[in-house]
Amino acid sequence: MKIAVLGGDGFCGWPTALHLSDQGHEVHIIDNLSRRWIDTELGVQSLTPMDSIQERCRIWKQETGKTLAFHLLDLATEYERLRAWLAEHRPDAVVHFAEQRAAPYSMKSDRHKVYTVNNNVNATHNLLTALVETGIDAHLVHLGTMGVYGYSTIGAAIPEGYLPVGIETLDGSVKSQDILYPTRPGSVYHMTKSLDQILFQFYAQNDGLRITDLHQGIVWGTHTAQTKRHEQLINRFDYDGDYGTVLNRFLIQAAIGYPLTVHGTGGQTRAFIHLQDSVRCIELALSDAPAAGDKVKIFNQMTETHRVRDLAEMIAGMTGAEIAYLPNPRKEAEANDLIVRNDQFLGLGLNPITLAEGLLEEVVEVARKYAHRIDRKRVPAVSAWTKDLASRVETDPEGTRLKSVS
Amino acid sequence: MKIAVLGGDGFCGWPTALHLSDQGHEVHIIDNLSRRWIDTELGVQSLTPMDSIQERCRIWKQETGKTLAFHLLDLATEYERLRAWLAEHRPDAVVHFAEQRAAPYSMKSDRHKVYTVNNNVNATHNLLTALVETGIDAHLVHLGTMGVYGYSTIGAAIPEGYLPVGIETLDGSVKSQDILYPTRPGSVYHMTKSLDQILFQFYAQNDGLRITDLHQGIVWGTHTAQTKRHEQLINRFDYDGDYGTVLNRFLIQAAIGYPLTVHGTGGQTRAFIHLQDSVRCIELALSDAPAAGDKVKIFNQMTETHRVRDLAEMIAGMTGAEIAYLPNPRKEAEANDLIVRNDQFLGLGLNPITLAEGLLEEVVEVARKYAHRIDRKRVPAVSAWTKDLASRVETDPEGTRLKSVS
Ligand SMILES: NC(=O)c1ccc[n+]([C@@H]2O[C@H](COP(=O)([O-])OP(=O)(O)OC[C@H]3O[C@@H](n4cnc5c(N)ncnc54)[C@H](O)[C@@H]3O)[C@@H](O)[C@H]2O)c1
Ligand SMILES: NC(=O)c1ccc[n+]([C@@H]2O[C@H](COP(=O)([O-])OP(=O)(O)OC[C@H]3O[C@@H](n4cnc5c(N)ncnc54)[C@H](O)[C@@H]3O)[C@@H](O)[C@H]2O)c1
Repeated sequence: MKIAVLGGDGFCGWPTALHLSDQGHEVHIIDNLSRRWIDTELGVQSLTPMDSIQERCRIWKQETGKTLAFHLLDLATEYERLRAWLAEHRPDAVVHFAEQRAAPYSMKSDRHKVYTVNNNVNATHNLLTALVETGIDAHLVHLGTMGVYGYSTIGAAIPEGYLPVGIETLDGSVKSQDILYPTRPGSVYHMTKSLDQILFQFYAQNDGLRITDLHQGIVWGTHTAQTKRHEQLINRFDYDGDYGTVLNRFLIQAAIGYPLTVHGTGGQTRAFIHLQDSVRCIELALSDAPAAGDKVKIFNQMTETHRVRDLAEMIAGMTGAEIAYLPNPRKEAEANDLIVRNDQFLGLGLNPITLAEGLLEEVVEVARKYAHRIDRKRVPAVSAWTKDLASRVETDPEGTRLKSVS
Repeated sequence: MKIAVLGGDGFCGWPTALHLSDQGHEVHIIDNLSRRWIDTELGVQSLTPMDSIQERCRIWKQETGKTLAFHLLDLATEYERLRAWLAEHRPDAVVHFAEQRAAPYSMKSDRHKVYTVNNNVNATHNLLTALVETGIDAHLVHLGTMGVYGYSTIGAAIPEGYLPVGIETLDGSVKSQDILYPTRPGSVYHMTKSLDQILFQFYAQNDGLRITDLHQGIVWGTHTAQTKRHEQLINRFDYDGDYGTVLNRFLIQAAIGYPLTVHGTGGQTRAFIHLQDSVRCIELALSDAPAAGDKVKIFNQMTETHRVRDLAEMIAGMTGAEIAYLPNPRKEAEANDLIVRNDQFLGLGLNPITLAEGLLEEVVEVARKYAHRIDRKRVPAVSAWTKDLASRVETDPEGTRLKSVS
């Protein structure tokens, strides 16, 4: 297949591009490199030393003989170029990672909120419109998030995207309808994924676009079989307070002797998936495309759920790190249950890597190896969900040792 | 109160601004005048001769002694100016009409789809962000549409915004939750209103913004008590295939001896409200603001429902016009029932103007009076929902007499 990987310079996109190229597909990466600019804005860098995308593509060719094409293009602001690119290349499938994906970054300031909504909604909508306009029957696989599901505090199992509800009709009978699971996103970033869902529903219905939306959990890990093949193919690893996700942050905190920072009680339950499983899921989703006219196919792309507190304790146990309970900069429930259905991917043959197997390798091979590249000042999470919360948030990195919440 | 009317140069916004000014409020109109530019783009003009907004404000001052301030500002692209404006003027309430509001225009081409999503989502989101950032506790009243409700073909009564659903929890008990009524918009324009709903839900929850969303039916009529006070205060009246709404189009078709163009079987049921009632509803909504922390208050702003076919027959009966059944350029159900709850506005004292009372006046006083200004070529609805549908759509205006669908 000819596959376009949008956002293919990113943390999930790059290993996906390599994985698909390795399987013999013709892979084209499209990216505006905005994420690298955000590194510059925030004064942070990937824990792992990451080359330019052009250089990484060159190394892949050298190692495997396979071509990875890179195209610099902004999906959100260059609609005409996007349409022209699709019309010329006519991909069989498009994997769409190209959005601003950090919840804390999306809540940093009004400018960041405005940017995130503008970038993500227009990127997705431009892509959908361009697919319709060029008449390409490509299968669109989009990376969504588990964070679109609402009501997770009531302790119900989360189905894969749709909820059957009974609607009482005028004659008194009850008709059952499958509706998009009622959404209640918890940040501006997560909200944009809820908006995406409605865009997908419309374009699948009106234009018969074939769309798969992957509601992904938090991705952990760094390496995949392909990124390990050469030092310069190494993947991005974010550890800072905005882009670092909880598990990857605990790993580097442990590696540098920084307390594991748990926000609030740590009673929040989250869904996780290893990066290697994430790229495998994308392969599986590509193999199982919906037909034109079908409703959007939704998968829950996660393999295990854990309370944040339990994760901290697990890593503390493995490494001897301390745990600091800090005020929560997010507006969210103190604790929630989370039971997630993922039968579809299991049915397609996914064989999950568990935290228990993979964690220690990450600590030793990645976090400790690159610990000298860490800027401790970038570790705290300082973006708060509201001004009230901002006033309570700890900003002094090493003060985190002292000021824990009662 | 100090009230900002966003989109106050438009069909609903202008009479609302006058109505609120008449009641003694300090009214500020914000508009980028994009709708006038679209008139130019499409080569159409309001049936009624409409002066510049500056001139209309001058006449209002002359007639009533009351000041209507006008501010040229694009909500979607001038975030910084919007925030500065709010910080300086600190309105008590904001009425938000400022979106691209024609479904056919939103489906005209890829450029129009991209424009509509970009304009509407950013306008609404910029406003929400700016309200949070400036810390103004203004009541936001937004004009949404009945078109966000989905599943109207199953014959259930449409509640005011929320649907109670039972979600089965892990312990087997069923918990009832009020969810946003499952949305299934039928055009890119309607879709943007579904997106708005999610923006509102998030900002009410995260930031305690006080928001009322009015799910409005199709507005008919031209005059209100205030627009009638002077010829130059006259309201916009769109009759063209993109901006003209069904009832107003029938009126002018009747006035110029053009057949009443019914798309498809005419079995579509739609909700309607007279312009005078629409401005009154906004007054009522402003008087009944939610408290900070409340969920978004949603009203169905409509007074009667009719089948399109029945409306055509009613007007044909009054005027002797012919009816032409044409291929439907929209992708929609051939027929649907529609029963809409509007108890909240009735409870607040709304006393609806019915079609039966108002229609004849419109035909005589507006449609016939300005019939000489009509460009017959602009009457057909030529924007199709998909390329397939476009190939079937009638474009020759007078051919409509001949080619009717079997
Ligand atoms: N990392 C996770 O834990 C996780 C979890 C769930 C879902 N996801 C989703 O997976 C996708 C990829 O996440 P990631 O961690 O790889 O993020 P990332 O920020 O590392 O990668 C995103 C890439 O998209 C590019 N991009 C952004 N906007 C663009 C635009 N307008 N035009 C072109 N390129 C653009 C960026 O430059 C970047 O290279 C995101 O959509 C994210 O929401 C990620
Ligand atoms: N007319 C109807 O039948 C009807 C029915 C249901 C809902 N509504 C809703 O009511 C609102 C007003 O409708 P209308 O019929 O008066 O439409 P309109 O097009 O006549 O007025 C909209 C006004 O908003 C302005 N505007 C658009 N984008 C803007 C931006 N980015 N910044 C500043 N100003 C901007 C336009 O210039 C225009 O003056 C719309 O949101 C529409 O969706 C209308």
